[in-house]
Parts: sequence; structure tokens; C-alpha cells
Amino acid sequence: MRYIVRVEVSLKPGHSDPEGETTREALLELNYPVDSVRVGKVYEILLEASSINDAQVKVEEMCRRLLANPVKDDYRYEIKEASNE
Amino acid sequence: MRYIVRVEVSLKPGHSDPEGETTREALLELNYPVDSVRVGKVYEILLEASSINDAQVKVEEMCRRLLANPVKDDYRYEIKEASNE
Repeated sequence: MRYIVRVEVSLKPGHSDPEGETTREALLELNYPVDSVRVGKVYEILLEASSINDAQVKVEEMCRRLLANPVKDDYRYEIKEASNE
Repeated sequence: MRYIVRVEVSLKPGHSDPEGETTREALLELNYPVDSVRVGKVYEILLEASSINDAQVKVEEMCRRLLANPVKDDYRYEIKEASNE
């Protein structure tokens, strides 16, 4: 079975976000009244797995081993079956 | 009023995604059977605006002028009122 996995990785609260700060400054220079900007990443992954439970085990591991930094990142994900497979 | 804006920027279909491809290769090396990976960005922005319509006009402009590249990116956003403001 193929599954569509959407993983969102964001910085934990309290960790500094240099990219967000740079974006905030650029928006302020363009005269947009922005108080804060936080930047995160979204991974859309097409994954082979034998079942939704197997997919969930794999995704949890992928997040911890590669996609998120456990020291500074939070992550969350959604898994759904790919259609026509 | 303050609004919480969530902007998601992703590559248009058909545009090559080198970061996604690198991530896919890294996941394959770790033995995860991944067919494709696409990477996008999420901006969470705290914005001052006089109304939700004003916020929407500003966000649309911010996307076109700074956050997304109109040639290669798609974007979508959600706006909600910040609580206690």
C-alpha cells in the first residue's frame, strides 16, 4: 500500500528562529505591521507500507532519525492512504 | 486587532525540488521505502490589521511580494483572530 504522509516540523517555543526574524524584518521594511514570524517545514512524502500502523511506525522513526531535531524541533504528522493503489 | 496568519508555501507541481530529492535519498539510505518527498515552508505570523479583510489584503500582498516566488511557488493561508486582543 502507498500512503501520503504530511509531516510538519517547527521550532519548539523558546528556541530562536533566525529565519523567522529575518523574514519579520523584511516584512517590516515593506511596511507590514508584523509582531513575530516563525518558520517551519512541511514534508509531503509518498511512503510504501504494509498497513496504516506500519506507516505510522515508519513515520515516527523517520521524524526522530532524520526530519526533526529532537533537541529543538516539534513535529506532527498526518497519514492517509494514497488513492488508486 | 491582532491576527494569527498561517501561510504555507510549496513548489508548483512539475518544478524540481532538490531539497525533497536529497531528503528522499537520505530516507532510502535509512531503508525507508519512500517514493517521493516534496518540501514546503510554513510561516506563522502575528499581524496587526484593522479587520479580517484588511488582514487578508495584507497577507495576499506579503505572499506575492516576499514569501512566495510567483514563478515556482503555490501558496495558501489561513487567518484567525489572536485571542485576548
